[in-house]
Amino acid sequence: MIKVGIIGSTGYVGAELTRLLSHHSEVEIMFLDSRSYASMEYSRVYPSLRGSVEKECTSINLDEDLENIDVLFCALPHGLSQAAVKKIVEKGKKVIDLSADFRLKDVDVYESWYGVKHEARDQLSGAVYGLSEIYPEEIAKAQLIANPGCYPTSILLPLYPLLKEDVIDTDSIIIDAKSGVSGAGRAPSDTNLYPQCNENIKAYSIGSHRHTPEIEQELTIAAGKELKIQFTPHLTPMTRGILSVIYISNKKGTTYQQMKDVYEKYYGDQKFIRLLEENEYPQTKAVYASNYCDISFKIDDRTQNIIIVSAIDNLVKGAAGQAVQNMNLMFGFNTDEGLQHAPIWP
Amino acid sequence: MIKVGIIGSTGYVGAELTRLLSHHSEVEIMFLDSRSYASMEYSRVYPSLRGSVEKECTSINLDEDLENIDVLFCALPHGLSQAAVKKIVEKGKKVIDLSADFRLKDVDVYESWYGVKHEARDQLSGAVYGLSEIYPEEIAKAQLIANPGCYPTSILLPLYPLLKEDVIDTDSIIIDAKSGVSGAGRAPSDTNLYPQCNENIKAYSIGSHRHTPEIEQELTIAAGKELKIQFTPHLTPMTRGILSVIYISNKKGTTYQQMKDVYEKYYGDQKFIRLLEENEYPQTKAVYASNYCDISFKIDDRTQNIIIVSAIDNLVKGAAGQAVQNMNLMFGFNTDEGLQHAPIWP
Amino acid sequence: MIKVGIIGSTGYVGAELTRLLSHHSEVEIMFLDSRSYASMEYSRVYPSLRGSVEKECTSINLDEDLENIDVLFCALPHGLSQAAVKKIVEKGKKVIDLSADFRLKDVDVYESWYGVKHEARDQLSGAVYGLSEIYPEEIAKAQLIANPGCYPTSILLPLYPLLKEDVIDTDSIIIDAKSGVSGAGRAPSDTNLYPQCNENIKAYSIGSHRHTPEIEQELTIAAGKELKIQFTPHLTPMTRGILSVIYISNKKGTTYQQMKDVYEKYYGDQKFIRLLEENEYPQTKAVYASNYCDISFKIDDRTQNIIIVSAIDNLVKGAAGQAVQNMNLMFGFNTDEGLQHAPIWP
Amino acid sequence: MIKVGIIGSTGYVGAELTRLLSHHSEVEIMFLDSRSYASMEYSRVYPSLRGSVEKECTSINLDEDLENIDVLFCALPHGLSQAAVKKIVEKGKKVIDLSADFRLKDVDVYESWYGVKHEARDQLSGAVYGLSEIYPEEIAKAQLIANPGCYPTSILLPLYPLLKEDVIDTDSIIIDAKSGVSGAGRAPSDTNLYPQCNENIKAYSIGSHRHTPEIEQELTIAAGKELKIQFTPHLTPMTRGILSVIYISNKKGTTYQQMKDVYEKYYGDQKFIRLLEENEYPQTKAVYASNYCDISFKIDDRTQNIIIVSAIDNLVKGAAGQAVQNMNLMFGFNTDEGLQHAPIWP
Repeated sequence: MIKVGIIGSTGYVGAELTRLLSHHSEVEIMFLDSRSYASMEYSRVYPSLRGSVEKECTSINLDEDLENIDVLFCALPHGLSQAAVKKIVEKGKKVIDLSADFRLKDVDVYESWYGVKHEARDQLSGAVYGLSEIYPEEIAKAQLIANPGCYPTSILLPLYPLLKEDVIDTDSIIIDAKSGVSGAGRAPSDTNLYPQCNENIKAYSIGSHRHTPEIEQELTIAAGKELKIQFTPHLTPMTRGILSVIYISNKKGTTYQQMKDVYEKYYGDQKFIRLLEENEYPQTKAVYASNYCDISFKIDDRTQNIIIVSAIDNLVKGAAGQAVQNMNLMFGFNTDEGLQHAPIWP
Repeated sequence: MIKVGIIGSTGYVGAELTRLLSHHSEVEIMFLDSRSYASMEYSRVYPSLRGSVEKECTSINLDEDLENIDVLFCALPHGLSQAAVKKIVEKGKKVIDLSADFRLKDVDVYESWYGVKHEARDQLSGAVYGLSEIYPEEIAKAQLIANPGCYPTSILLPLYPLLKEDVIDTDSIIIDAKSGVSGAGRAPSDTNLYPQCNENIKAYSIGSHRHTPEIEQELTIAAGKELKIQFTPHLTPMTRGILSVIYISNKKGTTYQQMKDVYEKYYGDQKFIRLLEENEYPQTKAVYASNYCDISFKIDDRTQNIIIVSAIDNLVKGAAGQAVQNMNLMFGFNTDEGLQHAPIWP
Repeated sequence: MIKVGIIGSTGYVGAELTRLLSHHSEVEIMFLDSRSYASMEYSRVYPSLRGSVEKECTSINLDEDLENIDVLFCALPHGLSQAAVKKIVEKGKKVIDLSADFRLKDVDVYESWYGVKHEARDQLSGAVYGLSEIYPEEIAKAQLIANPGCYPTSILLPLYPLLKEDVIDTDSIIIDAKSGVSGAGRAPSDTNLYPQCNENIKAYSIGSHRHTPEIEQELTIAAGKELKIQFTPHLTPMTRGILSVIYISNKKGTTYQQMKDVYEKYYGDQKFIRLLEENEYPQTKAVYASNYCDISFKIDDRTQNIIIVSAIDNLVKGAAGQAVQNMNLMFGFNTDEGLQHAPIWP
Repeated sequence: MIKVGIIGSTGYVGAELTRLLSHHSEVEIMFLDSRSYASMEYSRVYPSLRGSVEKECTSINLDEDLENIDVLFCALPHGLSQAAVKKIVEKGKKVIDLSADFRLKDVDVYESWYGVKHEARDQLSGAVYGLSEIYPEEIAKAQLIANPGCYPTSILLPLYPLLKEDVIDTDSIIIDAKSGVSGAGRAPSDTNLYPQCNENIKAYSIGSHRHTPEIEQELTIAAGKELKIQFTPHLTPMTRGILSVIYISNKKGTTYQQMKDVYEKYYGDQKFIRLLEENEYPQTKAVYASNYCDISFKIDDRTQNIIIVSAIDNLVKGAAGQAVQNMNLMFGFNTDEGLQHAPIWP
């Protein structure tokens, strides 16, 4: 049994962490930090967890409360957990940060895309990008994990192996991704109101979404050369799920079997990556509330394009589930401990 | 480990049974019967279960396939599983029927409300009504379980104790219940089409829904005298969940504390019944994809009425989850085995 | 052509007023007041109205801007439009207030249920309750209209005639009403977030909703004696619509034909009230984006209850549409001018 | 006043035609043909239209019933209206066919993509493709209109002018389109069930959707040379709306102003095309239940791509609304007669 704490536990990502960790056989939750709901019963904020989580929210003291834990999860928006991360790293303990703060290796890129100053630069270099299936050894040895963004996870898992194995062109990657509204968090705003989202789909931040440099950084590593992507996210009238459709000009004349072989090589043994049969395509319902990433693809001979489709649950594989998977790697637990439950359908 | 078979496994209730049983530590699934999808991979019918359920659908032979199992689940619409139930009972094995066929003790009432002839009358008298928290001993000893309907479960759990303890009036019970669309099953019809249901709520079968005699039968047992209820179900634009609001004239002058005491007496030790605090009310999201039934109530001093609210997931506590709970009782497993997962929020 | 102004034009009720009035053949919109969006193009706040409404939002000056209009619509939350109403009444002009401020004739009841002091008591006595089909003559002569609430409209239209004609019991009225989320307005809060509302239904303010005294006031007038109702509103996962189901013990032994006759007498000539055939029931989709109120009912001989169902669009007949209908009455226009469009299905 | 008939009036497109035509000042509806609902009141099939449409559905006789009308609308699936079209054309009357049967000028392409034999080949050559803003003169003179598909409308309106004016590359057009479920019609199937669609988004018919040759035919005409597109449609959890996002490599170095000028030239005077401001993007709610097509675009200097976004209501501008617009052109009515109503928000 290890002891964990969660900072920012009452946002949707924090709540998903709490739900998953409350059923994890190797974990004891020590505190559920929340400024907004401090000293309220957690199960009043999330009545779903009544009976599973009997704990009050607390606003933790960084000096005292970090002493008793083995690993800290930070589920705050970018910019807000740097002090906590700094502190816990200095204490020599492990931390998994789910914000964007430690994902970008180039601090200037971070400051330019996020428009804030980075206050924990010293910790940046030691941070490991927590894409579980791609960097399992690095994650196992890491002290500080930068947990990937939801869109990046849905995009990097299908693209990384193809670029690493050099079977696709790097110049023409277009990504059209659709996310459920929970990706916008629980902080109320005009954007995530029911009547604004229901019966409505819209693209946003076209060519300028903050996940762009994160995606490009990792694809550049995979390809061994710099590349740029075209990325269009959408707000879709559903609570959970990301569907990413990726278009690549098939300049290399890659065949279906070649692509399949690459995926088998990278993911054949990976429980959470499901490669679908030819002509079957991912849908978000098939991964609902689970840690799966479903992937399939088509080589369109008529147009000479490759089309790849992936689906994840943005709050699980796209956030809290992958964070738990990373914790499992860091502490030597079974990879799927706490994550075995099947998706919910319908 | 026991061996189970599921008849009608590709409807929504059958799929929920399959999902729950595939994660049950004491169960091995022997067959997934389905006429519509025979010899198709189950995970093509429910791609969510790829990796969890690797089995083809089969159209079983009643004479051979029932030999190798310890318990049979029937998840077919009413009228279609009577032959299978008859056969398996004759073989001396256990069966949990999720249709309405064995719930009504009076076969004439069944035939009149359902408009069909009952073809397994001999089995009726031995059937135990599987309301898990109310009849646990009878269930433990039963060979044939008539698993309760979804609406009845959401209504009987809050009402049974109150009538048994004689703290509410029997003459004025009005039930206004709202169900998600999955209650209408996966067979396509104009009623459960997305564009017909979305952005729409409607009442249906007012005063004539087939669950009425089932509810009245059990309430009559509880009260020790015949009673009638007013029951209005609604089709609500959501996939899962039933919210039942029950109105009773408080002619007995029952107090909040008296009601609370009754509930504590019956459900204080029951894991799957959650009694909410005063002025907190159930909502379907709080029980999503779980086996919980949330209950709370108000004594309205201004109007002299009692208002009770309950929420369940119609596919879990209202069908497959309660069936698994009953199986646990019948085989002496832990009550919550296979049902421990917390509800999904958001 | 008359000149109108709208205060609080960027809330959902204000937007619906703007949409309807922009197509009204007898109306010119003079200003669209909005504090939140002052000096922004209205069609940026509601891009749907680009091409229909080419006007900037303004934060009006009560002393100057009211001079040039014939009628003012106030679509602010309660408590915020009293000063404007006072001012415009003093100027001798007409005003239709869509808040709760002038609906309750007893100012003490208002102050106790709404928890604020009333700052325009002098105007109260002259206010006419704008239930269009019930008080058409009073409305035609009124200077100040208190436009009914959304729930009250859906409840009073079916109940008023029955009480007035003394065909139903007054002691046992129970109302279970389901509203879409737009009823909560466009001000962001945890309550109306997409992920909190979607796949969720809940009852709220059980026995304590602020529309209760408004409903009771008008039913008391109809019945000629004081009465109390049991009222339970629900938040339903849809944008628009209210479905009200009303239960009454049929102590008077009223027949289907008697009820039907009463409705025919009151509403036979009313375009916006549609009485459905026996065994057909209202659904919110059938009135979507229209000014209709659909009504039907059942006499349940088995239980001796009367069940009445009504459906409206909360933003149209429950707010902006009825306000326009009242304006038509006040200025002698055709009742349905600006309101002729059919509901949207699907 | 002209006399119109509608074949296939009870599908969703037929219902939208009926709704729009019932409010059209120049039109009298003579019959509402429907095989499924023959001799049922139309307002029982669409209770929304009670009071607006008082007519029984009929199963028409092609020899007699076509005599009394001026124009026929056919709203049947492909392959089913060819006999009627043939007959009415022979009678020298006008017809607007909303199926795919007369859209493709090359009958072999039709037979190969749709997998059926064309039974009205003689009528094909006279058919005019009814893209209202692009072919207004041809439409005005036409006897037979092939009304465009929903996806093609949302794609051709933004692309046609750019190709015609030669400001974009023809080799790299990728279209990622998202449609509401009403596009799948009212015939019940597993695909359009509420529980299958809700909380789910999926791509389908990747690279093989039947609207592909229709889109390519018209773009080829515009470009003056053959071209191919990559087209991915999605089923989105909403009832109405299509959002199309189009990606083109900006090989010609076209500027924002050049694109804008082209759009202004073609659509500056067109009421139903709304060009949004820079950095504002279409969303389906902004065109809900209206005949608008909203368009905007971005030149991404970072990636050298052009991204164009368009939104329509699939049942209005994508089907029935455009058909009415074409009828207006054919009979010399005002272009927007019957189509003036603003979109519904929220």
